[in-house]
Amino acid sequence: MVKVQVPATTANFGPGFDCLGASLGLYNYIEIDFSDRPEVYAKGEGTGEIPLDESNLVYQAASQVLKRANIDRPLKIVLENNIPLARGLGSSAACIAGGLMAANHLAGEILDTSELVQIGTEMEGHPDNVVPAMFGGFCLSIVHENKVIYKTFPVPYWLRFVVCIPEFELKTEDARKVLPKTVKFEDAVYNTSHTAMLVAAMAQGDLTNMNVFCQDKLHQPYRSHLIPGMDKILETVTEKGAFAGFLSGSGPTVVCLTLKERAEALGQHMVDIFAQEGIKSHYKVLSSDSKGVRFL
Amino acid sequence: MVKVQVPATTANFGPGFDCLGASLGLYNYIEIDFSDRPEVYAKGEGTGEIPLDESNLVYQAASQVLKRANIDRPLKIVLENNIPLARGLGSSAACIAGGLMAANHLAGEILDTSELVQIGTEMEGHPDNVVPAMFGGFCLSIVHENKVIYKTFPVPYWLRFVVCIPEFELKTEDARKVLPKTVKFEDAVYNTSHTAMLVAAMAQGDLTNMNVFCQDKLHQPYRSHLIPGMDKILETVTEKGAFAGFLSGSGPTVVCLTLKERAEALGQHMVDIFAQEGIKSHYKVLSSDSKGVRFL
Repeated sequence: MVKVQVPATTANFGPGFDCLGASLGLYNYIEIDFSDRPEVYAKGEGTGEIPLDESNLVYQAASQVLKRANIDRPLKIVLENNIPLARGLGSSAACIAGGLMAANHLAGEILDTSELVQIGTEMEGHPDNVVPAMFGGFCLSIVHENKVIYKTFPVPYWLRFVVCIPEFELKTEDARKVLPKTVKFEDAVYNTSHTAMLVAAMAQGDLTNMNVFCQDKLHQPYRSHLIPGMDKILETVTEKGAFAGFLSGSGPTVVCLTLKERAEALGQHMVDIFAQEGIKSHYKVLSSDSKGVRFL
Repeated sequence: MVKVQVPATTANFGPGFDCLGASLGLYNYIEIDFSDRPEVYAKGEGTGEIPLDESNLVYQAASQVLKRANIDRPLKIVLENNIPLARGLGSSAACIAGGLMAANHLAGEILDTSELVQIGTEMEGHPDNVVPAMFGGFCLSIVHENKVIYKTFPVPYWLRFVVCIPEFELKTEDARKVLPKTVKFEDAVYNTSHTAMLVAAMAQGDLTNMNVFCQDKLHQPYRSHLIPGMDKILETVTEKGAFAGFLSGSGPTVVCLTLKERAEALGQHMVDIFAQEGIKSHYKVLSSDSKGVRFL
């Protein structure tokens, strides 16, 4: 039996659309073992929605590894889920990353990490949640000629991510549909240059001007109508003590970066703004996770 | 009397349009002193083209500082120019950065560096050559609410920049005209993500995959017809031993990054390709400059 914990993740970090992400200290737990028949048990987030058969995402990920190991045996999978589904916190990437790494351990470590990243990215469609879910920290990734290239940096230990999770789901594919086919040249340059500064700031561990560096013109403006309250949150969090705020993944969760002592007030502020729009939400104060998938 | 050396620079480093630059070990020398009448003497690159009166760019930059110091005295300026004009090697930024810093010294250091960067950027129109000319190394810069924000990183000491300089000029304003008003969404994401990886690679001093990270889709494709041979150079330099190649600034100079031992052959390769297009060129093998403006 193998048991792993796998973190939530926030992608589209600031202007880093489809390339920057970070892991968060909110975990799903996956137990996996061979069995005489396919069995999936789940409790926590998504119970009732999550399929409890071989179509389960963790099961599918694990099967990808077993197939490569030529192991044709059913699995028993027990899930304890704390990452909410379809909220922009990387729940599917967590299922995939955790399923792959747990199954790889069960199969005798037959694949190296680059192969696991590759399979995970193919399953997820993009690497920007899968990479931080596997490795933790602040992560950069691109896909070049179908091959994932990634880099990781530590996140300052004192930094808190206040994630405000509205009580409605937003499917990534729906949030993708509102993105434009073309953008203004200066918006392309804007995200390019701000992403450069953001990566440099994280590499140097210096969050001065983080509010500037985290501005985005590629996806947030097009998605704001899908998440009433987001614009007002992003406009006001810095005056309430955040370094910066941004939409987590494709939303609807909004995240802001701050110090521990300011985190609770910021969380309440975000909940209050969503409430003004008639949207129920709750917040969590999280550190970044520095390990990614961890064997327990 | 104050004498400074000021380096050439390469901007639009890889995909880092308008935000990434690096200084190069090729220098202009500027001597500046008070005089009883405006005097400008120049030798080297651009002699005959460069105005020798108060409209001279170094003189104008110096005057900006003296005006702020309430000093109303004419200057004598002696220039020894090694940076070719209008080739994408930051000759105007060198004049501005050198003129500002030399005059500031002459005036008794009345302005701090952030003010000098600010004035230089306003004169030049953008900061991506001015910042590396002033400070050296690999530099990132953005302009936020008219204020320049910049960061610098060291360039690995063993890295060589092979710059191949065609014998024709290309004015930045002409090279700007060919840029599109809009670009494909995926091209904006492409430059954003590749710039992220490039900055991380430079921050980590790890040039693995540099050829991938230096790819650009925002300006090189639109400018290639202005620089016959550029595409072929950029397609072939990695197989000839370069880490990566890109258009320097808005061209026409093409630069590639390599090790010292491969530099001469790469320079000749670039000259040969330009020659096939009927374009005369010459190459220089340069290190990055780590100091920026230096007082002699």
